[in-house]
Amino acid sequence: MTTNRWDLLFVHANLASFAGDAPFGLIEDGALACADGRIAWIGPMHELPPGADAAHVEDLGGALLTPGLVDCHTHLVFGDNRANEFDMRLNGASYEEIARAGGGIVSSVRSTRAATEDELFAQSLPRARALLADGVTTLEIKSGYGLDPEAERRMLRVARRIGETLGITVRTSFLGLHALPPEYKERRDDYVALVCDDMLPALAAERLVDAVDAFCEKIAFTPAETRRLFERATQLGLPVKLHAEQLSDQGGAALVASYHGLSADHLEHLGETGIAAMAKAGTVAVLLPGAFYALRETHLPPVAALREHGVPIAVATDCNPGTSPLLSLRLAANMACTLFRLTPEEALRGVTANAARALGVADRGTLAVGQRADLVAWHARQAAELCYWIGGQLVRQVWIGGRPV
Amino acid sequence: MTTNRWDLLFVHANLASFAGDAPFGLIEDGALACADGRIAWIGPMHELPPGADAAHVEDLGGALLTPGLVDCHTHLVFGDNRANEFDMRLNGASYEEIARAGGGIVSSVRSTRAATEDELFAQSLPRARALLADGVTTLEIKSGYGLDPEAERRMLRVARRIGETLGITVRTSFLGLHALPPEYKERRDDYVALVCDDMLPALAAERLVDAVDAFCEKIAFTPAETRRLFERATQLGLPVKLHAEQLSDQGGAALVASYHGLSADHLEHLGETGIAAMAKAGTVAVLLPGAFYALRETHLPPVAALREHGVPIAVATDCNPGTSPLLSLRLAANMACTLFRLTPEEALRGVTANAARALGVADRGTLAVGQRADLVAWHARQAAELCYWIGGQLVRQVWIGGRPV
Ligand SMILES: [Zn+2]
Ligand SMILES: [Zn+2]
Repeated sequence: MTTNRWDLLFVHANLASFAGDAPFGLIEDGALACADGRIAWIGPMHELPPGADAAHVEDLGGALLTPGLVDCHTHLVFGDNRANEFDMRLNGASYEEIARAGGGIVSSVRSTRAATEDELFAQSLPRARALLADGVTTLEIKSGYGLDPEAERRMLRVARRIGETLGITVRTSFLGLHALPPEYKERRDDYVALVCDDMLPALAAERLVDAVDAFCEKIAFTPAETRRLFERATQLGLPVKLHAEQLSDQGGAALVASYHGLSADHLEHLGETGIAAMAKAGTVAVLLPGAFYALRETHLPPVAALREHGVPIAVATDCNPGTSPLLSLRLAANMACTLFRLTPEEALRGVTANAARALGVADRGTLAVGQRADLVAWHARQAAELCYWIGGQLVRQVWIGGRPV
Repeated sequence: MTTNRWDLLFVHANLASFAGDAPFGLIEDGALACADGRIAWIGPMHELPPGADAAHVEDLGGALLTPGLVDCHTHLVFGDNRANEFDMRLNGASYEEIARAGGGIVSSVRSTRAATEDELFAQSLPRARALLADGVTTLEIKSGYGLDPEAERRMLRVARRIGETLGITVRTSFLGLHALPPEYKERRDDYVALVCDDMLPALAAERLVDAVDAFCEKIAFTPAETRRLFERATQLGLPVKLHAEQLSDQGGAALVASYHGLSADHLEHLGETGIAAMAKAGTVAVLLPGAFYALRETHLPPVAALREHGVPIAVATDCNPGTSPLLSLRLAANMACTLFRLTPEEALRGVTANAARALGVADRGTLAVGQRADLVAWHARQAAELCYWIGGQLVRQVWIGGRPV
């Protein structure tokens, strides 16, 4: 056994590895070594090779160490916020009155289009910082409030810039089919064509697109329109994912599974056919309890059936200005337990290993040799505490690629 | 008009004063001056006396400034946590199985009794810090996990020490009638007598008790037992408050109102008689949406009737290890809006002006001349944003008695 001098060695850590089948993949009183930004050794203290040495040793004294969390579904780049609309609604305004006052998704489109790239960056960066402060080291960010070539491009550039600025990994998803922009109200086919034939190829050529997403719903885009987008994505070699079955069963989950999609997201109204298709294709079910909570939904996603079929379950913030202004992935995990009755283990695999899978990034989300050394030490001893506490500041220290943040 | 040199002057602040009847008591583009730890001047910028000067000037550039938040109902001093029980329950364990495994409130009593004063302090301080980091400058802390003279005393001493350590105001409530301790299972009258005749007078003599509380419920103490405690509190000149009508209507709210109590708390099952009694006595209704959320309750407190009767409404975290491990008062305000349909204005008055009233402290919770200069500047412009964002780090800076924290 080699006993190289490692860069960093954690000792006396309670390791929640999320590798293997043991609850939380737990290694009690464990050690973990990093070299060249990767995990070089992991195991119980008593198996640590004699003479093991590192440039820096962190004695965690029994504190919990986990992989950096992965938020696999956010819309966190947007102009302005919609607190005013939240206030109006609670003061009794109807959706119609709010729409007449310029509210709803079109208000986010308006303010996102009106913002310069620097303004959009300055407004969005604190949201990504809040997620990082809560333990998130890999983050998905969607476009979808621009809905024209320049504004969509600006959103994706801002997403990339957030990753570079914070040193976290940002995976972008192009969500041109998020809503029909007002100027295309009478020309929906033209908009779908613009998205599929112009915007997507151009943005992909600029390497601004890691995956392609759409909102398949009665109030958004049809399965046929979604399919047209997915065909184009497939031609371009880009993976697909889908906002599916949030408000009704449109067959979106089966559709995205038929393209071997990374994930189907929301899924409150998912039926057996969709579940079976997802299980077969290995498509991850991304649950978004923040929107369920904020919208006071009552129709629960079919968690028991997802379990039975062995569909991997992830949990994300869905951070967005309208239906989920949620700035904590740990709180999303708590909501997944409280509202959807996931076990803490399921919720935590959902924000680590399965969330990484939902983004198609295989080198993180678990603690195992060769994985990226994206790590979080917590003010907690037990893994379940991460889901149990509601709010609060539990992060003790974050490392990205083996370096402290 | 005097133009003394003030200690501290905020300019270009969006002042949510919660004084007066205007929404949020808002003063746009306002100024606020502090001297000797109190607010010395407040008004719009254009009314600021010419030549106004201060040792330190803070230009908030349009950011929101509010009173320090007041959390008027917490149980944040306790030994250990109950994440394990949370995990067991989500893995399908029944309440009976959890009780057999030593869970439930008795487990908190056991671990609180087992902890030394220093251990209890070390475990509880981070929870108070989390609340402070979220904008709380005045905090109520209850006893009630000791349930014997020494352990109750230890809890209250730790509560005082937390206040001294953090520089925040801690108001203590003696909650000896929280649960019947296991060793008194067959001698309930003896325990009530111990609480009323020995513990309360002794702890009051040590000045460890600012108010007296009880849990009046079928599973806890009867109205007659509560009355006996309230009689003793009244003799000692101490104000009373009550955990009332959480699971059933016991007439607790009317009872506490008959003693001109500070507050009745929880209130999901409060009826018209209780509401009318509270309105007449000026007893504050303290809503605790964290427990409602965590327990997945469905029976809503009678918000509309409270409004109609003009009962002041406060909102608190109820921070406790069993039913509300909630470490953010701002999140409690969001839950009050989302789950109980309070308006953002009601929720925010509930964590400022009305929460101060629930603690019987008249010199805070609003921005007005003479009030303590406990202040929070936020990474936000609109007051409603404090309820709108779910999680995240919105506090920009806290001042206590005019000094930055
Ligand atoms: Zn979404
Ligand atoms: Zn309580």
